[in-house]
Amino acid sequence: MKQLKERILRDGKVFPGNVLKVGNFLNHMVDPALTLEMAREIVARFDGCQIDKVLTVEASGIPLAFAVACELGVPMLFAKKAQTKNVSQNVYTARVASFTHGRDYDLVVEKEYLSAHERILVVDDFLALGNALNGLFKICSSADVEVVGAAIAIEKGFQGGGDALRARGFRIESLAIIDSMSDGTVRFRN
Amino acid sequence: MKQLKERILRDGKVFPGNVLKVGNFLNHMVDPALTLEMAREIVARFDGCQIDKVLTVEASGIPLAFAVACELGVPMLFAKKAQTKNVSQNVYTARVASFTHGRDYDLVVEKEYLSAHERILVVDDFLALGNALNGLFKICSSADVEVVGAAIAIEKGFQGGGDALRARGFRIESLAIIDSMSDGTVRFRN
Repeated sequence: MKQLKERILRDGKVFPGNVLKVGNFLNHMVDPALTLEMAREIVARFDGCQIDKVLTVEASGIPLAFAVACELGVPMLFAKKAQTKNVSQNVYTARVASFTHGRDYDLVVEKEYLSAHERILVVDDFLALGNALNGLFKICSSADVEVVGAAIAIEKGFQGGGDALRARGFRIESLAIIDSMSDGTVRFRN
Repeated sequence: MKQLKERILRDGKVFPGNVLKVGNFLNHMVDPALTLEMAREIVARFDGCQIDKVLTVEASGIPLAFAVACELGVPMLFAKKAQTKNVSQNVYTARVASFTHGRDYDLVVEKEYLSAHERILVVDDFLALGNALNGLFKICSSADVEVVGAAIAIEKGFQGGGDALRARGFRIESLAIIDSMSDGTVRFRN
């Protein structure tokens, strides 16, 4: 998606360790206009897929997932990263190793919010190794829902998570796929 | 706000310890139509206030804050609850005691995303003791921005946080204020 790629080139900052900082428009401060534009692009790509619910993971996946849910007119559900007093024991969980945080965490979704055979679109802001996405897919599998696919804002293609999931048959639509940035310059996949 | 109150009465569940569970429309699964309606009500209440940015805290404040930011056409910024590799040391922080999670955490906002004298509307899903809001206000004070006020979906009036902040001169607009629920029945303030 042209606008997103231009914005990454303009405002993204590359740091050592393959860290792309896009906090001024995607995952700390959020640009509503760009996010709504991304949501419309995602909805167009999954046109005709009869999506019942959008699933993401807190926190930075929420704005885009919410915008997609608004466009589709369906509920948005976000997996939580820790159990709180408010979350019952009646939950689906999946263990996830985090690239960003450097420590493992549990994804948690209350069972009552996913019904068998619902058609789910998974949305997230980043895809690198695919750990979070794998966790969400695992939860979807536990809940016996149908995964229509996953829509991602920025995929770090060189980390292989997206292609591994595609090889397993998942439909993964990323609005910008970065094939390299190790020299500090972001290069997109065509 | 009538629609929100009706939804709380219909779908909210009261648990011991003054816990109100509204995970099926507000803070786990999110109803986009209701959220957009709440955002329009918030924007109407702060009409003419020249808001430059919406500030919230991850995770459950994000959908409503994002919807408000969309309505206003301004950026949405969310405070993070922990430091990650992606967040530089150049941050504002505030220590917060959490009612929901039963443990303290740090609110973190990167300094570059708040500019002195910006006019900030704070948005969150819940207000109970006011700890998260106090933390956000402290960050706003550190950043020398102007707090226009705070907009909250559900205020637990009986826990006093909202009224304490009003007594200090902050404008706090809550779409539903609960005055009691200790007997399992939710009663709203008029």
